[in-house]
Amino acid sequence: MNNRRRRIYEGKGKILYEGPEPGTLVQFFKDDTTAFNKKKHEIIDGKGVINNRISEFVFTHLNRIGIPTHFIRRLNMREQLIREVEMIPLEIVVRNVAAGELATRLGIEEGLVLPRSIIEFYYKSDALDDPMVSEEHITAFGWASPQELDDVMALAIRINDFLTGLFLGVGIQLVDFKIECGRLYEGDMMRIILADEISPDSCRLWDIETRERLDKDRFRKDLGGLIEAYQEVARRLGIINENEPIRGTGPVLVKTD
Amino acid sequence: MNNRRRRIYEGKGKILYEGPEPGTLVQFFKDDTTAFNKKKHEIIDGKGVINNRISEFVFTHLNRIGIPTHFIRRLNMREQLIREVEMIPLEIVVRNVAAGELATRLGIEEGLVLPRSIIEFYYKSDALDDPMVSEEHITAFGWASPQELDDVMALAIRINDFLTGLFLGVGIQLVDFKIECGRLYEGDMMRIILADEISPDSCRLWDIETRERLDKDRFRKDLGGLIEAYQEVARRLGIINENEPIRGTGPVLVKTD
Repeated sequence: MNNRRRRIYEGKGKILYEGPEPGTLVQFFKDDTTAFNKKKHEIIDGKGVINNRISEFVFTHLNRIGIPTHFIRRLNMREQLIREVEMIPLEIVVRNVAAGELATRLGIEEGLVLPRSIIEFYYKSDALDDPMVSEEHITAFGWASPQELDDVMALAIRINDFLTGLFLGVGIQLVDFKIECGRLYEGDMMRIILADEISPDSCRLWDIETRERLDKDRFRKDLGGLIEAYQEVARRLGIINENEPIRGTGPVLVKTD
Repeated sequence: MNNRRRRIYEGKGKILYEGPEPGTLVQFFKDDTTAFNKKKHEIIDGKGVINNRISEFVFTHLNRIGIPTHFIRRLNMREQLIREVEMIPLEIVVRNVAAGELATRLGIEEGLVLPRSIIEFYYKSDALDDPMVSEEHITAFGWASPQELDDVMALAIRINDFLTGLFLGVGIQLVDFKIECGRLYEGDMMRIILADEISPDSCRLWDIETRERLDKDRFRKDLGGLIEAYQEVARRLGIINENEPIRGTGPVLVKTD
């Protein structure tokens, strides 16, 4: 980590630094783990390292199947080189199974498979606790245009298809996940691309056999074993070898790329 | 009020009785005034009588301009004859100015004119405190089909146009209002029509000059003078004569139809 670089943005889990070339940024993965709008906050050693690897893996494959993302390449244990985009101030949540806020708000039992995948939008505002909003609010307040929102939803559905298949293949049910998107300007062109990260911090991942949580709910629900669960996800995806722990300190033992 | 009739449904502000003919119901307006999902509850003498008259006035004019409603005719001080419909379990809210839940949820100052009218949906459930939902939830859970939702939104926009003009003509700003819709079956045909009521219970109405609240916010915010405000609305609309109070007890002095 190079502290002389200009820091562009610091969020709850990541820092963005100025990149080596115009239009690029460096995305740094912190070990900070937060929930309930930062009311719960811990440092979990090595989490940033493993999320960097899992998100690299997912974004690389999304790029390959033609889903545009901000990801260029991983730089080191905790950093990625990414394209700079103009962020859309929304969390886009795709749900396949009732859990979390949807289960609470609509009184649906956690674990119930939804009649179809549901896309939700939350306005990114710590001060307002990220309130749920609808397309009406988003377009009326100009957070995104109707066309941009159509593009966002099309991206979200494709990502859900890919991730559902990917995790199914390794015995994991994709319950829901959150993405963030941005506008990439290239000359006169603008397109909506996937930004941020996809990791067990932003997905609900349940073991298909045991229903064990392999995601940030381990932290939200005080179940413990968060880092071990994230490592299990990374191992099943073939990102790290069996029995090779990832820690933020000490040597990091990973498969060579 | 005829207690021998079969009661079909009792809500917070109204009772529905079996009607004189198949496909009809009698809608009885109670004096019960509730807010915050019935956490606040009072009986306000005469409120049902005046809402019956205001809602009659609005629905009659909506019928005339071709907006289909369940309203057939007023029967007496507290009752209307209506068409029986299959209710859609949603409160449809149209907002022109920030107030109430939208102002709180999105941190917008009350009174700010919205960039455009915004339609919101709330799932009718006392147990869940009527949670806000989006088109995604509504169509995924089958509360209404995409086509039905399009019809509901088209109705809501037309009603907003009419009501905005109506109230503007009598010096009142239509801040927001809530409607409920239902499915009317006629032979093989089904269409979406307006049901429930439109009254100062279901609208936010501000005097254009003084910004005085002429609606249920007088009750929600403990401002007092609720019945006087509702009478003022009725007087301005020409429904009741100047200086003729409406009370649930005693003789009701109203213009003859």
